[in-house]
Amino acid sequence: MKTYDLIIRRADIVTAADRFTGDIGIHQGRIAAIAERLDPALAEKTIDAAGRMVTPGGVDAHCHLDQPSADGSVGSDDFLTGTRSAACGGTTTVIPFAMQFKGQSLDDAVADYHRRADGKACIDYAFHLIISDAAPEVVNEQLPRMVASGYSSFKIYMTYDALKLRDRDILDVLDASRRLGALSMIHAENDDCISWLTERLLKQGKSAPRFHAVAHSATGEREATHRAISLAELVDVPILLVHVSSRSALEQIYWARGKGLNIFSETCPQYLFLTAEDLGIDDHFHGAKCICSPPPRDTDSQNAIWTGLANGTFSIFSSDHSPYNYDDPHGKKLHGDNASFDRVPNGIPGLETRLPLLMSEGVLSGRLTPQRFVELTATAPAKLYGLYPQKGTLSIGADADIVIWDTQSDKTIRHADLHSAADYTPYEGKALRAWPSITLARGKVVWADGTFYGQAGDGRFLPCAAPFPPAI
Amino acid sequence: MKTYDLIIRRADIVTAADRFTGDIGIHQGRIAAIAERLDPALAEKTIDAAGRMVTPGGVDAHCHLDQPSADGSVGSDDFLTGTRSAACGGTTTVIPFAMQFKGQSLDDAVADYHRRADGKACIDYAFHLIISDAAPEVVNEQLPRMVASGYSSFKIYMTYDALKLRDRDILDVLDASRRLGALSMIHAENDDCISWLTERLLKQGKSAPRFHAVAHSATGEREATHRAISLAELVDVPILLVHVSSRSALEQIYWARGKGLNIFSETCPQYLFLTAEDLGIDDHFHGAKCICSPPPRDTDSQNAIWTGLANGTFSIFSSDHSPYNYDDPHGKKLHGDNASFDRVPNGIPGLETRLPLLMSEGVLSGRLTPQRFVELTATAPAKLYGLYPQKGTLSIGADADIVIWDTQSDKTIRHADLHSAADYTPYEGKALRAWPSITLARGKVVWADGTFYGQAGDGRFLPCAAPFPPAI
Amino acid sequence: MKTYDLIIRRADIVTAADRFTGDIGIHQGRIAAIAERLDPALAEKTIDAAGRMVTPGGVDAHCHLDQPSADGSVGSDDFLTGTRSAACGGTTTVIPFAMQFKGQSLDDAVADYHRRADGKACIDYAFHLIISDAAPEVVNEQLPRMVASGYSSFKIYMTYDALKLRDRDILDVLDASRRLGALSMIHAENDDCISWLTERLLKQGKSAPRFHAVAHSATGEREATHRAISLAELVDVPILLVHVSSRSALEQIYWARGKGLNIFSETCPQYLFLTAEDLGIDDHFHGAKCICSPPPRDTDSQNAIWTGLANGTFSIFSSDHSPYNYDDPHGKKLHGDNASFDRVPNGIPGLETRLPLLMSEGVLSGRLTPQRFVELTATAPAKLYGLYPQKGTLSIGADADIVIWDTQSDKTIRHADLHSAADYTPYEGKALRAWPSITLARGKVVWADGTFYGQAGDGRFLPCAAPFPPAI
Amino acid sequence: MKTYDLIIRRADIVTAADRFTGDIGIHQGRIAAIAERLDPALAEKTIDAAGRMVTPGGVDAHCHLDQPSADGSVGSDDFLTGTRSAACGGTTTVIPFAMQFKGQSLDDAVADYHRRADGKACIDYAFHLIISDAAPEVVNEQLPRMVASGYSSFKIYMTYDALKLRDRDILDVLDASRRLGALSMIHAENDDCISWLTERLLKQGKSAPRFHAVAHSATGEREATHRAISLAELVDVPILLVHVSSRSALEQIYWARGKGLNIFSETCPQYLFLTAEDLGIDDHFHGAKCICSPPPRDTDSQNAIWTGLANGTFSIFSSDHSPYNYDDPHGKKLHGDNASFDRVPNGIPGLETRLPLLMSEGVLSGRLTPQRFVELTATAPAKLYGLYPQKGTLSIGADADIVIWDTQSDKTIRHADLHSAADYTPYEGKALRAWPSITLARGKVVWADGTFYGQAGDGRFLPCAAPFPPAI
Repeated sequence: MKTYDLIIRRADIVTAADRFTGDIGIHQGRIAAIAERLDPALAEKTIDAAGRMVTPGGVDAHCHLDQPSADGSVGSDDFLTGTRSAACGGTTTVIPFAMQFKGQSLDDAVADYHRRADGKACIDYAFHLIISDAAPEVVNEQLPRMVASGYSSFKIYMTYDALKLRDRDILDVLDASRRLGALSMIHAENDDCISWLTERLLKQGKSAPRFHAVAHSATGEREATHRAISLAELVDVPILLVHVSSRSALEQIYWARGKGLNIFSETCPQYLFLTAEDLGIDDHFHGAKCICSPPPRDTDSQNAIWTGLANGTFSIFSSDHSPYNYDDPHGKKLHGDNASFDRVPNGIPGLETRLPLLMSEGVLSGRLTPQRFVELTATAPAKLYGLYPQKGTLSIGADADIVIWDTQSDKTIRHADLHSAADYTPYEGKALRAWPSITLARGKVVWADGTFYGQAGDGRFLPCAAPFPPAI
Repeated sequence: MKTYDLIIRRADIVTAADRFTGDIGIHQGRIAAIAERLDPALAEKTIDAAGRMVTPGGVDAHCHLDQPSADGSVGSDDFLTGTRSAACGGTTTVIPFAMQFKGQSLDDAVADYHRRADGKACIDYAFHLIISDAAPEVVNEQLPRMVASGYSSFKIYMTYDALKLRDRDILDVLDASRRLGALSMIHAENDDCISWLTERLLKQGKSAPRFHAVAHSATGEREATHRAISLAELVDVPILLVHVSSRSALEQIYWARGKGLNIFSETCPQYLFLTAEDLGIDDHFHGAKCICSPPPRDTDSQNAIWTGLANGTFSIFSSDHSPYNYDDPHGKKLHGDNASFDRVPNGIPGLETRLPLLMSEGVLSGRLTPQRFVELTATAPAKLYGLYPQKGTLSIGADADIVIWDTQSDKTIRHADLHSAADYTPYEGKALRAWPSITLARGKVVWADGTFYGQAGDGRFLPCAAPFPPAI
Repeated sequence: MKTYDLIIRRADIVTAADRFTGDIGIHQGRIAAIAERLDPALAEKTIDAAGRMVTPGGVDAHCHLDQPSADGSVGSDDFLTGTRSAACGGTTTVIPFAMQFKGQSLDDAVADYHRRADGKACIDYAFHLIISDAAPEVVNEQLPRMVASGYSSFKIYMTYDALKLRDRDILDVLDASRRLGALSMIHAENDDCISWLTERLLKQGKSAPRFHAVAHSATGEREATHRAISLAELVDVPILLVHVSSRSALEQIYWARGKGLNIFSETCPQYLFLTAEDLGIDDHFHGAKCICSPPPRDTDSQNAIWTGLANGTFSIFSSDHSPYNYDDPHGKKLHGDNASFDRVPNGIPGLETRLPLLMSEGVLSGRLTPQRFVELTATAPAKLYGLYPQKGTLSIGADADIVIWDTQSDKTIRHADLHSAADYTPYEGKALRAWPSITLARGKVVWADGTFYGQAGDGRFLPCAAPFPPAI
Repeated sequence: MKTYDLIIRRADIVTAADRFTGDIGIHQGRIAAIAERLDPALAEKTIDAAGRMVTPGGVDAHCHLDQPSADGSVGSDDFLTGTRSAACGGTTTVIPFAMQFKGQSLDDAVADYHRRADGKACIDYAFHLIISDAAPEVVNEQLPRMVASGYSSFKIYMTYDALKLRDRDILDVLDASRRLGALSMIHAENDDCISWLTERLLKQGKSAPRFHAVAHSATGEREATHRAISLAELVDVPILLVHVSSRSALEQIYWARGKGLNIFSETCPQYLFLTAEDLGIDDHFHGAKCICSPPPRDTDSQNAIWTGLANGTFSIFSSDHSPYNYDDPHGKKLHGDNASFDRVPNGIPGLETRLPLLMSEGVLSGRLTPQRFVELTATAPAKLYGLYPQKGTLSIGADADIVIWDTQSDKTIRHADLHSAADYTPYEGKALRAWPSITLARGKVVWADGTFYGQAGDGRFLPCAAPFPPAI
C-alpha cells in the first residue's frame, strides 16, 4: 500500500495566511504532508498543479437547502442538487439551516433535516438552527442539548412573520449563546419598517419587483443592525450579522467594533455584483429574479462592502443561496407573474458562483489578496462555526477539501453551465477570469474539467464545536 | 546524506491562519516538509516538541540598533547585543533603522549601517530608511535606487528636531512611496505641541521624568495621526502609523478605515503593560527608565489597544526597542540625574520581552488567538516589509526560523536574565507564563533552555521587496 | 383709565436673545410696551425691579397632572396643586398630557382632561395627546380633528405596557404628524430590554429601588433613541426625544443632527442633579423617591448633558413632573414598602424647582447664559408646541407672564416650603442661589415674596398651533 | 423737543428670539421704546413699516477693507466704498481686519487702520487683529494692551506665506486669548498641502483658475480644522473657525462639539450659492472672479452647510468680503490674464449681497426662521465680538441700526446696481425675492428705496469688549 492516495504536485498553495509552492500528500481523505517535493512513487495517483492556485475548498456558511416554507413555495434545490452545484463551484462544505417551526422542538427540526440530507448530500454538511420559537424549554433545555450534539449556531430573524423573534426572545437566545459558547447569527431588518413601507407602496400601486428594494430600506437595515448590536452589548456576547448590504449598516459595525464590541459580520456576492436596478428599472416581473432580503443597494454601498472585505471588518463571505425557480408556480411566480413584490418568494441562487466571482473580481482584480480570499470563504467560516481545523484550510490533518483553480481562461457565467436545479442565475452573461478546474472533497475528485463526479450520499454530517468558551 | 538536517517532531504548529499537530522537516536552513509524521531516520537530528506550541520566529519591525544620536547619547545595544537578546526572546529577524543625517545621502547612510551590522548580527536583518532630509535628489533619485536595492520602507518623523519633516516633505516622501510601492511608517506626534507644553512645564518647575507624559499629550498624538492620515489620503497611498499609544489616536484610525483608507498601524508592549504612572508618581529620576515617545498612557488606552489587537485593526506588534542605560553618562543620565525630562534620551529596551509578554498576557490569557499572535508578531510584519514568504511564517520554502515555546512554567522577568546590553528592563518583576524554550534561526539552534548559541556574523542582510504595486 | 395696569420698572430684562435694562408696561394682561422709561404716572401700579433679572414665565412642556394610572396608583398633584406649585417656582404655562386609554377616542380623552383642569388650574395650560392606541380611525380621523382643535403634539411611548406603541404604529403616528405639521414626542427606552433585565434581576433577588437604574439601562435608551431617529428618518419628519438621560443616547442625537436630520430633544433637572446613587447605595426603600424613567445616570452623563444644553443641542428643559407620594398606599408604596422596583410608580416631583435649579446652577454658575436659560425654559417650548408668541417670551403683545428673580439670597430647597401636594422633594437640602421673587401670570401677581396669590380657575386652556408646515 | 426723533410704525419686528408687530421709538440714535403703539405725535418723523419685516442692521464680522497686500495687489474697496455697499445691503456694522505685518507692532498696525477708516467709514466699525507675528512682546505685552483698548479678536492664519503662524505660535496666541477672554478666529487650511498640490498641478500645466479649487482641497481644510480644534483643546479655549466650506470640515466641528469642546464657526454666502464649477468648467480666466480661499465646493457641501446653519452648529454668517477688480492690473489680473491660479489675488466681493441672499434663499425659502437669520447675521456676531448689546439687536438702549425689508418684489442681482468699488459680482443675474428697503444707522437713514444717503465719516470706531471671562 502506498503512503499517499494522491499527491497534488507543484501547487501554488494558498492558506488564510500563506502562499507557497509545494506538493500536497493526501492519505485516507486527509492532508498528510505538505512538502517541497513528495516522491510521486509514494502515491497511488498524482495531479500536476504546476502554476495553478490551490486553495481550501469553500465553506459556504449561509445557504438554504430543501427548506420548506409556510406559504407553499418550494425552493429549487434539495441536498443533492444544492451540494452538487456547490462542488462544481469549489465549495466542499455547506452549512444550511435546520428551521424550527413555531411550536416545534429543535430535536424534531434537526431530525427532519437529517432525513432531508441523508443519502443525498454530495459534500459534507453541518446545520445552523433557525430559532423561530424561543419558549423557555427551547432556550433552557433544547439549546444546551443541541450544542452538545453539534449544532452550535443559532439563526435569529428580526423580520419575516413566520420566523421573527421579539427583542425579548432575542435576548433570551443571545443569553443562551453566551452560556453555551455558541454563535448567534442575526438577520437584521426592521420588520415593521418593511411592512409599513410595503403597505404604503401597494396603496400607491407600486407593486412591481423593483419596489421590494424600496420597502426593504437601508434605514430599516441600519436600525435593526444597531438594535442587534445593542442587544448583544447588553448580554455581552459576540454575534454575527448576516448578509450586510448597505454602507449605513456597515458603519454601525465599524462604530461597534471601535467601542470594543465583538461584532462579526458577513456579506454576499449579491451586494458586490448587483444593485437595486437589477430588480428592474421598469415594472417587468423578471426583476423578481433578484428579489432577496436585504436587497442589493447601489454602487456606493458596493464600494463600502469591498473596503470592509479588504480591511478585515467582514469576517465571512457566503452565498445566502436560497433559489426559487423563476418560471414556476411554486417559485417566483407562486402568486402569478403579476404578483406584488411582497408575495414573491425571497432569495436567489449563488452556491456555485460564490467562489469564482470573488476569485475573479476580488483576487485577480487586486482588491483582495489570495490569502484574504481563503480566509473569507473557507477558514473563517470554519472557525466561527466550529468546523476548524477539520474544514476550511490546507493543513496537516485537515480534510483534503481542495480546489485547483483555472485563473487563465475567460469564462462567461451561463445558467446552462450551472448545476443547481434553479432555472436561472442572476449573473447570466457576466465575464469571469476564474473557475475551479478540479474540486476534491475528502481527497476524492468531485468536479474536474467540467464534469461532476460526486455522488449523492457521499457527504457526511459534521457536528460543530462551540466556537467560544462558555460563560460561567 | 540525510533528507532532513532536522525534524521537529509532534509540534503544536501555529501559523497566522492555522494550528495543527505535525512534524517539521528542515533542510539547508529552510522548511522542506510539514507532515503528520516524518520518518526520524531521515533526519540528522530530531527535537521532540510534543505538547509544545511552535511558532514562526518573531520579526521585530521596529527597533533601533547602534543608531548614533546628535546629542551624544549612545544606545545600549549594537548589532551583536541587540540581535542576541532578540534571539533569546524568540525573535529571528530584526528590521532596525538606517538613519539619514540631514544632508547625507541615503547611500552613505545605508553603507554606514551595513558596516555596523556586518560581522556582528547574530540573526538576519533588514533596514528601514529614516528620511530626515527630503531634498529632491533624495526623493527622486536616491529613493528609487534604494527600493531597487532592498530598502522599501521609509520612516517619517513628525517630531524630533534632528529628524522631523515638514508636511510638504512628508507629501513628497509619500508620493515617492506611492510611485515605488514602498511603505511609509509615520511617527505621529505634533512637535509644536510637545515643545510648547515642555516650555510651559519647565517654566512651572515641572521637570521630573513624569512630566514627559504630560508634554507628549494624547491630543498631540491624535492631531498628528489625523494629519498623517490626511496627507496619505491626499496622495492616495497606504501608510503605517507606528507605536500608537492612545485611545484617541486609535479612534482616528478606525474612522479612517471606515472611510475606506488603507491605514496600517502598529503598537508596542509598553502601551499594554505600562502606564504614565511608570514614569513616576513622584519626582524621582528613576521614572526616566520609562521615558519613551509616545509615552505609556492609562488603562483606558490599554484596553482600547487590546481591543484593536484582537479585532484586526492593528497590523503589527513591535518592540520599538531603543534602550539607553539608566546609570550611564551616555544614557538616561546624559545630562545628569537631575536633568529635565526633555533632555533625557528617549527609549526603552524591549526586543527580548516582546514575544513572551504577548504570548503570556495575550494568548494564554485568552485575549488573542495563537494565530493572531503569529500574525501580529511575525507574518504581518514580514508581509508589510517585503520579507515574506522567506520570513515570518512556517511554510514550505520559508527560512526555518522557529520558536518552540515553554508555556507551562512560571517565570519572572529579571534584568539579570536578559541578554541586551541595557542595564535595566521596565518590566522587572513581572510574572509571565511563557518563554521560548528553543529558538532556531535558519534551522540552527540559537537559544535553548537558557543558553545563547548564536554567533556574531551569522545574521545576513535581507533585501526587502516593495510591498505594494508601484502606482503608474 | 390709565394706559398701563402695571409697569415693572428698571428691570434687567432677559429674552432668549437679549438682555437690557428697561421698563415693561402691561395692559390687559399683555405686554404693551418696553422702553427705557415709561412714565409711572401712566400706570395703576408699579413694581420696582431695579437690579433684578426679569424673565418670561416658564413654560413647562412635560408634566403629568391628575393623570390616572391603570395600576391604581394616584399621582400627587391635580390641576390645582400642580399649577400652584408651578407658579410658585416661576412657571406660568404647563403642558400636561391628555392620555388616551387603549380603545378610547381622543375626543373623549381630551374631554376628560378638560373636566379635570377646568376650574382648578391656576395658570394657563395646553395638552399634549398621549397616543396609546393608533387605530386607523385615531390616526386618520381623530388626529386631524385634534390638531384643528389645538392639540398639536403627540406623545409616543416605546415602553410601558399600557401605553407603548409598536414601531408600525409609531410610523403611522409620525406620518400623521408630518401631514398635519404636528410634533411627536418620543419616550425612547427599549421595553423588551427593560422587562428582560427586570426579570433577571428579580430572579437574582435584586429587587431594591436601586436596581431600577440597572433595569433601565443606558444601552436600552440608546437603542430606542437610534430606533426613534430611524423611524423619523424613514417618514422624513421632525421629532422630539423627551427626557434624554445618558451620554450615549445624546451621542445618537449628535450623530443624527450631523447627518442633517431634524431631531429635537429635551432633558430634565433629574439628569443634571441626581445620579443612580440617589436610588440608593443600599437596599432601603427610600430610594423609591428617585425612581423615574429613564433613571438618573452618572456624572459623566451629567457633564454630557450640561454640554448639550450649552451648545444648543437640547431644545428644551422640562420637569417631567410626575409625583407620587412616598408614604402613601396610592403612591410609591402602592405595593408596600418592600415592593420590587418594577412595581413602584414611576416619577418624581419637579414643577416648582425646575427654574430655580437651572437659574442657580446653570446661569449663576456660568454654565449657561441667561438668554439660553430663557430659550430652554420658555421660548423654545412655546415655539415647538405652537404657543408662541402668546407665551414664552417678553415681547409686545405677549401675555404678561413674567418672573422677577431674587438671585442674591441663599436658599435651601425644603419640601416644607414647596407647594405641590407631593410629600417630598428629591432635592431636599440642596442649596440654591436663586428663586422667583414675584411671578406674574397674564399681568396678575400669583406669587410674591413667599405667598401664593393665584386662584383655582384663573388658568385658561391654550389651543396650540401646529408648529410645522403640513406636508403635502 | 419731541420724545422720539423717529417712530417706525406697525413693523413686523424680528429679533434673534422673537417676532411681533409693534412700533419702534428712536431717540438720539438709540432704541428708546418698543410698543404696541407709540403716539406718532411724539415723534419728529415716522416711517410706516406696515407689513414689512424689520430686523437689526447686519453685523458683518468678516470683511477686508483697504488692506494692503505684500504682492502689490490692491483690494477694490476702501472704507468709504466698502461701508457704503454694506449699508446699501442692510449691514450697519463691519468688523474688518487690522493686519500686522511681520515685525510690526500691533499698536502701529491699529494706528494705520484707524487712519484708513477715519473720515471715510459711513457706518460703525471695529477691528479684528491679524496676528502675523507672534513674537513674545506681541503676545505678552501688546495683546493685553490691545484687548484693553477694544481689540478683542485675533485672526490666525494657517496658510498664506505672509500671514501664517506655526502651530507653536498659534498655541501662544490661543493661550493669550484664554488669559484675556478674547476670541481667536482661525483660517484653517493646510498650507503645505496647498503648495504641494499647486506645484504638482502647475507641473502638469494645470494653471487655469479652476485648479485653484483642486489645490485648496477639502482634505487640507479638514486636516487644518482638526488641528485647530486640537490646539484649542490643548489650551482649553474657545475658537471660531472662519469660512467653513466643506462637509468634511464641518463634520470635524460636529465631532468636537459632541466631545464638549467650545468650537464656534462661520460660513459665508459663497459656500451656499457657488460651487467649484463657478471657477470654470473650462480654462477661461473669468473663473478668477470666484477665486477665494477656501474655494466653493459642491452641492453636497452646500447641503451640509445649510443644515449646519439651520440646526445651530454655525454661529455666524459673514461675507468674507475681499474684492479685487477683475479687469485691473492691481486686481485679479495682477499678473496678467494668463496668470496661473496661485498668482491671482484671493477674494470676492460680498458685503452688499450677504443679507439679501440669506433672507431670500434662507428665510423666504423656509430653510431658516427669520429669528435664526437675525441671530446669524447680527446678534451672534455682535455677542461673539463684544459689541453686544450696543449692536446686533433691536432692544432698548441698542443703537438704532435697523433694516426695513422689501420681501415682495422680484429683484435680480446686477453689478450695475451695487455700491462696492469692485467691478463685478459673482452672483450676477441671480434672482432674489428680498432687498433692504430702508437701512437706518444709529437712527439715520443711510439707504432708502435705491438711494444711498450715508456720509463718509459718519461711521464711528467701536471698541470691542472681551467676549469671555479671562482665565485665571
